[in-house]
Amino acid sequence: MDNNILIKDVLILNPMNNGEIETKKSSLLIENDKIAKIDNDIEENGISKVINGENKILMPGFINTHTHLSMTLFRSIADDLDLDSWLNDHIWPLEAKLNKEYCYIGALLGAIEMIKSGTTTFSDMYFYMDGVADAISEAGIRGILSYGMIDFGDEEKRKNEIKENVSLFKNFNNTSEGRIKVFFGPHSTYTCSQELLKESRKQATKYKTGLHIHMNETKKEIEDVLEATGKRPFEYLNDIGFLDSDVTAAHGVWLSDEEIKIIKDNDVKVSHNPCSNMKLSSGISPVSELIKNDICVSIGTDGASSNNNLDMIEEMKFASLLGKVDTLNPKVLPAKQVINMATLNGAKSLNLSNEIGKVEVGMKADLILIDMLSANLTPSTNSIISNLAYAANGSNVDTTICNGNILMENKKLTSLNEKEIYLKVNEAIENLKNS
Amino acid sequence: MDNNILIKDVLILNPMNNGEIETKKSSLLIENDKIAKIDNDIEENGISKVINGENKILMPGFINTHTHLSMTLFRSIADDLDLDSWLNDHIWPLEAKLNKEYCYIGALLGAIEMIKSGTTTFSDMYFYMDGVADAISEAGIRGILSYGMIDFGDEEKRKNEIKENVSLFKNFNNTSEGRIKVFFGPHSTYTCSQELLKESRKQATKYKTGLHIHMNETKKEIEDVLEATGKRPFEYLNDIGFLDSDVTAAHGVWLSDEEIKIIKDNDVKVSHNPCSNMKLSSGISPVSELIKNDICVSIGTDGASSNNNLDMIEEMKFASLLGKVDTLNPKVLPAKQVINMATLNGAKSLNLSNEIGKVEVGMKADLILIDMLSANLTPSTNSIISNLAYAANGSNVDTTICNGNILMENKKLTSLNEKEIYLKVNEAIENLKNS
Repeated sequence: MDNNILIKDVLILNPMNNGEIETKKSSLLIENDKIAKIDNDIEENGISKVINGENKILMPGFINTHTHLSMTLFRSIADDLDLDSWLNDHIWPLEAKLNKEYCYIGALLGAIEMIKSGTTTFSDMYFYMDGVADAISEAGIRGILSYGMIDFGDEEKRKNEIKENVSLFKNFNNTSEGRIKVFFGPHSTYTCSQELLKESRKQATKYKTGLHIHMNETKKEIEDVLEATGKRPFEYLNDIGFLDSDVTAAHGVWLSDEEIKIIKDNDVKVSHNPCSNMKLSSGISPVSELIKNDICVSIGTDGASSNNNLDMIEEMKFASLLGKVDTLNPKVLPAKQVINMATLNGAKSLNLSNEIGKVEVGMKADLILIDMLSANLTPSTNSIISNLAYAANGSNVDTTICNGNILMENKKLTSLNEKEIYLKVNEAIENLKNS
Repeated sequence: MDNNILIKDVLILNPMNNGEIETKKSSLLIENDKIAKIDNDIEENGISKVINGENKILMPGFINTHTHLSMTLFRSIADDLDLDSWLNDHIWPLEAKLNKEYCYIGALLGAIEMIKSGTTTFSDMYFYMDGVADAISEAGIRGILSYGMIDFGDEEKRKNEIKENVSLFKNFNNTSEGRIKVFFGPHSTYTCSQELLKESRKQATKYKTGLHIHMNETKKEIEDVLEATGKRPFEYLNDIGFLDSDVTAAHGVWLSDEEIKIIKDNDVKVSHNPCSNMKLSSGISPVSELIKNDICVSIGTDGASSNNNLDMIEEMKFASLLGKVDTLNPKVLPAKQVINMATLNGAKSLNLSNEIGKVEVGMKADLILIDMLSANLTPSTNSIISNLAYAANGSNVDTTICNGNILMENKKLTSLNEKEIYLKVNEAIENLKNS
């Protein structure tokens, strides 16, 4: 066997399709990139790596369904500002100076942060995505990459944008042992022409892949789209035939009842980004209403420049607590639900639920271990589900495995030299600011 | 010199009375329990302990102004429930079985969690406070202890409750090298008779100490107090002469304009507990309104059973982001403000601002170091203030010093055997549940 790992006597936490979380003590065998066996009695002979699972939780790696990984470079560069000033005076001028190298180093930093906090798959939308692909290839995690297409109605630009996303698909889809997939990424209904939106749908269908788009994030966006098209964003996309079950709609904050029905009817997936929505004062997504309608809601961190981290465990807590205070109902978004959103629902959103998001034989070995012998997770005998959703943070992740490879063990990265990369990132952002 | 520590070439982050945060690179000398010198050039000769401050932030330890430390034992024991069911079916039955030993081990766990996440001072209200005092004495942090007095109008009970808090004061105030102070802790306006509230004020004034009380946490509480007294809680306390600048009012969620005026006029301190208020669906405190009125607002985690952790860094992020989304104004509660709330305002609330909450010569050496070379704090060249408020969590704390003693260094506790204590806690809560 090339690569096999036995995790012995570990508490397995498995998100299920019915919304529950199954827990059982067992051992788990990884062969190559997959979970080969889950059994109390697995022979240790011939196993190249044995991990003692005592006092640890084993669960699927987190799936972050909306982020802009290279923007990790811009973490804390501009905060506590109006959205307009944040974008116009800070983010856009910096983005204008980006190149592949900057996007590579930003994405590498983001990948390290994700590995350290237990995220094994993310869905990204940005520029210079070849740089992001290089970082992901090197870091060992799984990424769904889309190029953020924007044309503002300019035909020339539109053609180039589509060309860029198609070439990203052709060059990188299914590369890096299948860890990289490519989606199409029309940025939003207010930055893309109707032609670009339609062409994006056409290409996604042609290449049998998905779509990633920002939807209904701010109140102003709704007003602008209403003015431009006479319709609310989801009504507009529905009318032009854009929507289908392969669409991840990020944010979904300002939604009418009619739009919720459209989302449901088209099986559109919603990526909930509570920290970003709170920090930028965008508003509160009616998540418990979406869930009541059986809509698949997953969780995203958005970019680190509007969060300011990529910690999916923290994001689960924000999702649950924000939903509770918004509805004044402490029962909504319980612990098991946000854990399901951050794992299995993420896999469903990205059309990867036959490969990731569960701890089952035949699935990819995208797994994390959490050390229960930690101050903030003690007692470990009350509820590990509540501990994980409400008391933990990313630093409780002890071991991260993606595609059968151990990327972090005992909180130490196995291949990347993190401190060296942090110093390189500091240098890069200073160069960018001064360029 | 008995005990001196030199922290060399460190980036000092100092909260200031004007709400700003001063940052400067310098070295800092601790002699015994105090900060003795802050200077670029401090002689290393004769120093017993030198810490290299390169790539680290030095700042005041966090001050958690409202918690119930022993309840750390109940972390994740009951979640996602209505307040009534949470209290009646879960918390109160368990509390009825508590004793000094349980409260000691719960408080010790809480103390470890605080040390690990950079909190050096907390204000507590609970039962069996001698057990809490023992834990604090052992753990080395600073605690303001109050006994939670409840009489529900019963005169006999009232006398005993007052006696209990007075005896706590006499036995423990200013003990453990001055690390323990004792306040008076009438639980709330809906669990205490007017006589108990008045007697608490009398005793606090007599012993020249402070008062710690739950105020205006839920909508139902306002309705109940209105029905019982004809007044809203702060109006009622104002009329009976309870309020003064030595009162910490925890929560302050449902406040009328008149009550905000009463708080301001009496210089009452408010402890904001965003996670607990969100998780229990109590509501959203109008914090930015309080701040606009120059009211001193600090931050508390509440007990771990309604949070579910004691991480003040996470609590700062919740405070800021909740304030922003509540007002739909991204400029309110900026990073520097929540850091000030979690340090200097905490000290002011507890009448300790001449001793803690700032990094200045003559202050107690209650200090923490944060390692900037961490994935979630990189780049460290954009804004360390934003990194701290929005990107960090308690696990980024590297070193915790209280009263001049190093309690944690390089993320390892210096004196307590943490894993052993975690296993003891697991055993204790199982015994309590089965008793």
